[in-house]
Parts: sequence; structure tokens; C-alpha cells
Amino acid sequence: MRNLKLTLAYDGSEFHGWQVQPGLRTVQGTLADAIARITGEQVLPQGSGRTDAGVHALAQVATFATASPIPEQNLVVALNDILPPAIRALEAAEVPHEFHARKSARAKTYCYRIYRGDICPPFLARYVYHHPYPLDEDAMVRAARMLEGEHDFTSFAAVDPERHVEDEERSNVRTVFSSRWERVQGGCAQPRAAGPTQEREDHELIYTVRGSGFLHHMVRNLVGAFLLIGKGTMRETDLTRILNARSRAANPAATAPASGLYLVSVEY
Amino acid sequence: MRNLKLTLAYDGSEFHGWQVQPGLRTVQGTLADAIARITGEQVLPQGSGRTDAGVHALAQVATFATASPIPEQNLVVALNDILPPAIRALEAAEVPHEFHARKSARAKTYCYRIYRGDICPPFLARYVYHHPYPLDEDAMVRAARMLEGEHDFTSFAAVDPERHVEDEERSNVRTVFSSRWERVQGGCAQPRAAGPTQEREDHELIYTVRGSGFLHHMVRNLVGAFLLIGKGTMRETDLTRILNARSRAANPAATAPASGLYLVSVEY
Repeated sequence: MRNLKLTLAYDGSEFHGWQVQPGLRTVQGTLADAIARITGEQVLPQGSGRTDAGVHALAQVATFATASPIPEQNLVVALNDILPPAIRALEAAEVPHEFHARKSARAKTYCYRIYRGDICPPFLARYVYHHPYPLDEDAMVRAARMLEGEHDFTSFAAVDPERHVEDEERSNVRTVFSSRWERVQGGCAQPRAAGPTQEREDHELIYTVRGSGFLHHMVRNLVGAFLLIGKGTMRETDLTRILNARSRAANPAATAPASGLYLVSVEY
Repeated sequence: MRNLKLTLAYDGSEFHGWQVQPGLRTVQGTLADAIARITGEQVLPQGSGRTDAGVHALAQVATFATASPIPEQNLVVALNDILPPAIRALEAAEVPHEFHARKSARAKTYCYRIYRGDICPPFLARYVYHHPYPLDEDAMVRAARMLEGEHDFTSFAAVDPERHVEDEERSNVRTVFSSRWERVQGGCAQPRAAGPTQEREDHELIYTVRGSGFLHHMVRNLVGAFLLIGKGTMRETDLTRILNARSRAANPAATAPASGLYLVSVEY
């Protein structure tokens, strides 16, 4: 048996999230069906983590075992022939048996796109969160930096059974290596999306966060808190208080919409 | 009664074209419903022309008569509150009673986007035509220029009842002011779409055509012919022969897919 590592991009707006669910169109289920058609084998590819309905991926990583001798590059071509255009296989590589898409991950990067213009171009609606109202963006930039370092992120985790799934451990301590809001192209250069170029560059506010791992809903709950800080409803210093409370109830922020979130990369 | 001119952008992938059809989600029908909710009046806004299912618009123009005193800017805001995110009202303006979105148009510009990279980013799938195979792009550039000027475009018109609808006249003579294939950003700068920035700029081939008017399917049939020239199946000089034949049957090209086509602007 070979252990194969796939790198995938997908438009999350067309799926009920990554994880296979009976009767629903999911990325994992769609991928499993495509692999079965190519190799004749029933496998459930394991992702680096789940993404929720509506969340996009520029480079999700998944592994699966196969007895098929198909060369990696042929597998990429065959997958892209079978998969819907909303999922693309970017790369395939044989990896050691001990390699695991989730457990072997050392860092992940997500980004969150907010469209700040008055009118959100229709071509961007699935790919950003449209927030045209006033925000103190400087306060958001400062608040984002405060999160860098090791923290217990319980206050920013979803209160649900999936909470501990990603890392199969009870601890909610994670290390955030970098946490930045930017108005520029640099941060999340990859997921540039439809709509007037000039407008887009003038109107997008992008959050990029790289960390050792992320709890369920963590990035969207952080963005929700940054938005409250931007609106002036919450102070930057409240972040520390909320972190220390280690309770989702201590965090008044709503979970930001899925459409703006992208899994950018997974490092091993 | 006031005569109002609306400028609209829409993502054609979510609609069965512009024209209202019973039981189908169309741009015109969705817009009429939104206007009815705002003004209480049942009107059918008249577009500058129909767009087919899957065809996008960056600045479609539509007019309708209303007794409502609503200020133009308020109408834009109210429409964008009611319309789905796939249609955006960009502008509203009161115009003279004799102004007609279709009949008053002096020129229109369309563009057609072809994605040339091996793997089409999932975020672009609805917004381009993916053609990763070899093309003699220089031959396409030369062929496009040959179309500039006044011609009878019968050979590039759909053979269907809608053929003469746009201009309500029997003549298929139109003037093409400019007709260009380009690898650069300039031509169709507006509809930049999702996916890796660098990739996009390296991988998009864009056709931009500005003319006095266009027959049903004309741009997509021209693109189909340019693709045959690019593949070497047809010679550039065959274009003249096909034009002179004044018959769709003389044109071996398939109609290019709707996903790549954009109505860019209408001039009055």
C-alpha cells in the first residue's frame, strides 16, 4: 500500500463542508467518490482538518492509502477529469506511511476577507464577508497582534462536540505565530477574486493568521471579536480578559460568516 | 411618470438569463420583483439587450417608468437590500422619456475570458472558459482585427427566433469598432476574478469587442471561430469566406460556453 498526499483547492460555497455526511454534498465525500472511480477502492481521505460549510481552501491537504500503482501526476489529471470544477487537485505525492494529514501538521495559515466597499461586486459575494460600515481598522490591527503567542483559546472555540476533534486532545492551548490585519495584497495574495480590480485592491481588508493549530470556529470567532473592536463596542484590552476567562460565554462576539474564510496552507 | 435608468452588475451563473420566463429565476424577473416591493408598481424593466443563461454583466443598463418619487440614490440602496447578492444595482438616474435602454444604445462592449492554465482555480470556474490546450494566439489576434468594420454577421448569428430581437430589424449588418485578443490586464480590466493573482495574470487570454450592436450568440460564435483558428482547424482567411456566405451553416465553429462572456458596458 502507498500513502498518498493530495493538495486540494475548493470553493466552499458549493459544499456542506469538508466532512462526509449522509445525503449531503461534501468535499470529503465527493473526493472519496472520485478516488473510488479511479482506483476501484473505497477509501475516506483524511484531511488536515475539517472546514465548515461555505469555508474555502486554497491548499487543503488530505491523505489516503491505496494499492493502485497510478503515477502521481496521472492521479491529479484523472481526479480533475472526474471532480466538479469547484474542487481541484493541485498536487499528489507519495509520502511515508507514518505521515498523517492532520497529526503531522506543524502549522496552518488561514485568511479572512472583508469587502469594505459600499457595493459588493456580485462575483465576490461567495468569497468575502461584505461589511461596508465604519470600522476603526487601526484598533483591529493592534488587537490582532495581541493574540500572537501561546494562549488557551477556549473563549474562541465553538461550544459543540466538534470542539476537540481537530487535535484529538483536551487542551485548548494553541500558539499563534502571526496574526495580522492588512489592507494590502501581500497577506492573502492567493485568493484574489472576481470584480473590478481597482475596487478590490482599494476595498479589501484581510486577516491572516498562522498558528500551530486551530479550534473549531476559532478564526471566525476571533474575526467576530476584531469586528466588535473595530466598531468600538469592545476595547482591545477586553481580548486579554476574554482569553483569561476560558469560556465562550465570556466572548460577546458572533461567529463571522463562513464566506470570508480560507484555509491558505498547511505546513509539515 | 419618471423614466429611470438603472446600471446593474450580475453573476450570470445564478440565473436563466436576463429575460423573464415563467417558473425560472431570471435577472429581469428578479429585478421586477424587487422594484415592485419598493414602488408597489408592477413593471418589466427593459434591458439594453438580453444576456443568455450563464452570461455575466459588469454594467447592464435597464429602464423602467415609475410614479414613485424615491430619490435615485435611495433606490440603489433599497434595491441592493432586496436583490440577491448575485445582482447589484450600481447606479440609478432619471432620464428623458424618449430614452430607451435598447433603442438608444450607440455601442456595446463585451469581453470573453479564456483561462489557459492547466488547472482552473475553483473560484474561477463560473467566470471563465477553461481551455488549457495549445492555441496559436498570434493567429487569433490577427483574425480578430479582420472583423473590425461593417459586416453582415448572419454567419455568426444564432439560428433561432431570438435572432432579430435585439434590434427589431431584419438587417444583420453591424459595425465592429474594435476586436482584440489580449494576454494583458488592460482589455477587460473589470472582471478580474478569484484565484491566484499571479496565475491569473499569466494565464488569461481575453477577447474584447466593441460594436454598434450584436446579434444573438454573435460574440460566442465569433470566439468559437477564433478558437478553431487558434487550433489550426481553420485559417484566418476563412473568416472572410464565412462572413460572405451569410449563413450560420457556413461557419463550422461551435458557440463558445456562456461562462466566459461579460457584457462590459453600454454607451448612449
